Amino acid sequence: MQNPNIKLTHNLVASDMVVGTSVYDPNDQKIGSVERLILEKTSGRVSYAVLSFGGFLGLGEDYYPVPWQMLTYDESLGGFRINLTKDQVESAPKYHANEEYDWSSDNGRRISDYYGVPPFGAATM
Amino acid sequence: MQNPNIKLTHNLVASDMVVGTSVYDPNDQKIGSVERLILEKTSGRVSYAVLSFGGFLGLGEDYYPVPWQMLTYDESLGGFRINLTKDQVESAPKYHANEEYDWSSDNGRRISDYYGVPPFGAATM
Repeated sequence: MQNPNIKLTHNLVASDMVVGTSVYDPNDQKIGSVERLILEKTSGRVSYAVLSFGGFLGLGEDYYPVPWQMLTYDESLGGFRINLTKDQVESAPKYHANEEYDWSSDNGRRISDYYGVPPFGAATM
Repeated sequence: MQNPNIKLTHNLVASDMVVGTSVYDPNDQKIGSVERLILEKTSGRVSYAVLSFGGFLGLGEDYYPVPWQMLTYDESLGGFRINLTKDQVESAPKYHANEEYDWSSDNGRRISDYYGVPPFGAATM
C-alpha cells in the first residue's frame, strides 16, 4: 500500500501513504485503518478520513467518517493517533460498506457535533 | 477504481474517486490521469495532484506534480480539465516512477513558478 519511492518532507504526505494506514487509540492499541479520504473539491481540503475496523474483504464493514483534524500522525507508531477509544468511535455516525452515504451538510453537522469540532466549511484554518 | 457506493454532494469527493480519474486538455483530449494526491498534513489541504501519462504497468512512467487548483472537475467529461496542453505539462517539473522525489520547498517553488500559481503554503484560500 505504501510506496517507498516517495520521499516526503516533514509536512507533505501522499494519499496512497495515508489510505491503509493504521489508527491507534491513546493506549497505542490499533483500532482500525484509514479506508479513504473525503475531500472538499473547491478548497482541496480533506474534510474526513473514513475509518474501518476490519471485516473480511470489505464484507460486513462499517465506515466511520472522522474529521481530519482528529487524527495526528505519530512517527513512532507509523500511524495516526486518535484521542478516543474504539468504543467511542464505534458510537459515532457511520455507514455500511454496502450503503450509499449521504454527505449532506446535515450529516456533516452530526459528525462535527459528535466529535466536538467546528462543522466542515466553517473557518478552521 | 471508482466506488459507486459513495453518494457525494456537490462539493465533496472521495480520494478513491479522484485517484485514477482522467485529465483532459482544453480540447477535450485526454492527456493523462491522477496517480496520487500530495497532502499537507497539518492543514489537511491537497497541495498537488500527481499526473501520469501512461506507461506499461507503471514502468517508464514520469510523474507530474500539478498544483491542485489547476484542475477543475468537469461533470460532462467525468474527469478533470486542465487549461494546458499535454506538451505544456510535459515540460513541467516531473520525476520518474523509479526515483525518489524531493518534496522540498525549493521544488515546490519550481512547480508553482512553472504553473504561475502562488507557492504552496502561501494564503490561497
